[in-house]
Amino acid sequence: MQTPSDWTRAAGALLDEMRRRAPLVHCLTNHVVTNFTANVLLAAGAAPAMIHDPEESAMFAGVASALLVNVGTIEREQAEAMRRAVASANAAGRPWVLDPVAVGALPLRTTLSAELVAQHPAMVRGNASEILALAGEGEGGRGVDSTQGVDASAEAAIGLAERTGAAVLVTGPVDLVVAPGGAAPVRIANGVPLLTRVTGVGCSQGALCAALCAAADGDARLAAVTAALLVGIAGERAARVSSRPGSFAVALLDALDEIDATILEAEGRVLA
Amino acid sequence: MQTPSDWTRAAGALLDEMRRRAPLVHCLTNHVVTNFTANVLLAAGAAPAMIHDPEESAMFAGVASALLVNVGTIEREQAEAMRRAVASANAAGRPWVLDPVAVGALPLRTTLSAELVAQHPAMVRGNASEILALAGEGEGGRGVDSTQGVDASAEAAIGLAERTGAAVLVTGPVDLVVAPGGAAPVRIANGVPLLTRVTGVGCSQGALCAALCAAADGDARLAAVTAALLVGIAGERAARVSSRPGSFAVALLDALDEIDATILEAEGRVLA
Amino acid sequence: MQTPSDWTRAAGALLDEMRRRAPLVHCLTNHVVTNFTANVLLAAGAAPAMIHDPEESAMFAGVASALLVNVGTIEREQAEAMRRAVASANAAGRPWVLDPVAVGALPLRTTLSAELVAQHPAMVRGNASEILALAGEGEGGRGVDSTQGVDASAEAAIGLAERTGAAVLVTGPVDLVVAPGGAAPVRIANGVPLLTRVTGVGCSQGALCAALCAAADGDARLAAVTAALLVGIAGERAARVSSRPGSFAVALLDALDEIDATILEAEGRVLA
Repeated sequence: MQTPSDWTRAAGALLDEMRRRAPLVHCLTNHVVTNFTANVLLAAGAAPAMIHDPEESAMFAGVASALLVNVGTIEREQAEAMRRAVASANAAGRPWVLDPVAVGALPLRTTLSAELVAQHPAMVRGNASEILALAGEGEGGRGVDSTQGVDASAEAAIGLAERTGAAVLVTGPVDLVVAPGGAAPVRIANGVPLLTRVTGVGCSQGALCAALCAAADGDARLAAVTAALLVGIAGERAARVSSRPGSFAVALLDALDEIDATILEAEGRVLA
Repeated sequence: MQTPSDWTRAAGALLDEMRRRAPLVHCLTNHVVTNFTANVLLAAGAAPAMIHDPEESAMFAGVASALLVNVGTIEREQAEAMRRAVASANAAGRPWVLDPVAVGALPLRTTLSAELVAQHPAMVRGNASEILALAGEGEGGRGVDSTQGVDASAEAAIGLAERTGAAVLVTGPVDLVVAPGGAAPVRIANGVPLLTRVTGVGCSQGALCAALCAAADGDARLAAVTAALLVGIAGERAARVSSRPGSFAVALLDALDEIDATILEAEGRVLA
Repeated sequence: MQTPSDWTRAAGALLDEMRRRAPLVHCLTNHVVTNFTANVLLAAGAAPAMIHDPEESAMFAGVASALLVNVGTIEREQAEAMRRAVASANAAGRPWVLDPVAVGALPLRTTLSAELVAQHPAMVRGNASEILALAGEGEGGRGVDSTQGVDASAEAAIGLAERTGAAVLVTGPVDLVVAPGGAAPVRIANGVPLLTRVTGVGCSQGALCAALCAAADGDARLAAVTAALLVGIAGERAARVSSRPGSFAVALLDALDEIDATILEAEGRVLA
């Protein structure tokens, strides 16, 4: 896969395949974004399930098609549910995605994220500050806001990918995808600033990453590129409908439903 | 009550009465749908209250007009709040509704739902897989998705109604309402597929069931039929406004506000 | 500050300053409104962060620009997070706002609110029933609904302000702001009934109060007046777009984005 159009074509095929399978994504995510995340998955053609109890989570992670672990509002009991769900997903061979929200300065999520990232996630998704902190090279950002640029995190992201075996999606004005094994970095230039004015866009992208991993048969790098394209293009299309955050959020869900392989190929901007 | 128009007329009258009383519905529900459920109740003319602490829940269930118990993201502490709230609601003579989300395969919710269904709910609401599992005749569905048709669950639903004394609303492309005492089953044919593309529609219907029970003076069967008509018609009206899930969800809330007894009588499709 | 136009001009300047600083507001709030609250803050130009773990909350409250404590779905562990966050905010000199939802009849929140209100909040926000109950002069309302008029609470609000040092915002058809030190009460007459048909409007106003306090350099009274104007005017503008609650809620977020100092000065109705 070399050219931008190779990427957008492959991403379109993966989106089609994800919709054909309609993967059930087990989301252990933060309290702020549960509803929006579920609606994002449904709009894009996947199915959400959010099971919180540690014992139920452990069982369910082996049944669902993929797992999302997002530490945004982590508490001790949820941390235990995450540990058990990750172990079950791994045992059942299901891909899982780690979203280390605001990792760095806060102790519970930092310790937990460091522990979990060593448990073979298929993908890690975060902004530059989070990826730097997870790689041990930064102090984290300001809550969900990155205080670092994507390029500043490229080396750390590559190191993280090589060390953990995970694809890494670093989100920002231009998104960056890296993967282990010396794979060339891929940059995706879709998106609009309004995406940062709606809560849960990034967190629900993590759920889309998991859904796409469930259809990608091990190609987490392609899943990451596809998730970046999908959310970026959806944002651009929503921004054509509305310039204000309330109606933009509604249009974003509509756009996730509307985008198909053809749109993805036509509007995707992969930087080769 | 024999003819379809008897049902839609009675449902219209119950909707009017529910709005007149504006019942306060105590919702012990899952984390994914709290916000949407509250907005559905407000749009339809009832009032939501969500009190989680076990002690406060026990007190509040005796004060509220009705109680919803939805086990979608059950955890041990919430299970205790549910047990205590159910006991208080029963002691105070307030109707309560059980929504046994994803019951069957997962242990905590399965044990809890079996325990609670024996505590005299006015109504049980679920999809066919959930009703079969709760009746002891199935293994549950795939998260919130039913893997069974409504008709396959009719006998189990009737058995559950006779055993527990509750009206049972089985949701699907055609909804089914059964009740104890040899009452004839009622089918409601309103609805659109888009209703399954918005998270929390079914769960918030459970809250509407509770609100309608609070105004139905013991006629939980009529409350179930009315809730099925209300959500189905709201879905049909929203689908005329939008064909995509984000704007459809907004239009659904608007439709719940707009529907009155006249619309309900004109557009309801009860199968006699 | 004497005339209505003095107030709206000062409120407009504070709104500008709040946007310039984009304060990070740590919200310890109820499960029903987390998403909407985050979107309200983002729409208005502030930034949300919701950290639940007691230890992380304690650390984060000293880093964020302001703190909101809303007891709407209080549980024991969250109560502990609130105690620690308040202590940290006070130690770091950050303003914090108390929203004593449904205080009065329910024991956990009543005890906790009484304890916290003595810990020097910059502002208390509530409806008349809640303010009366917190002042020890009423029994609380019906969940989030006030059973008392704003005027009936004026004396209690003034007493609460004098006793605690906090500005007090009493919300209702006409909002009331009082402050300690013999400050003259201020009334704000903006708003529409539809604001009561969307869940979380009041709770998210509490978060706006915290954001405005972070920019007001100690003038919590002006922050309270500004928050009342902002939500009231946003409601009026949204009601021009939509008369039903689903689309009204979307338009409300858009209006919070749109309102600037000029609109606030032109449309604010302060009763001198």
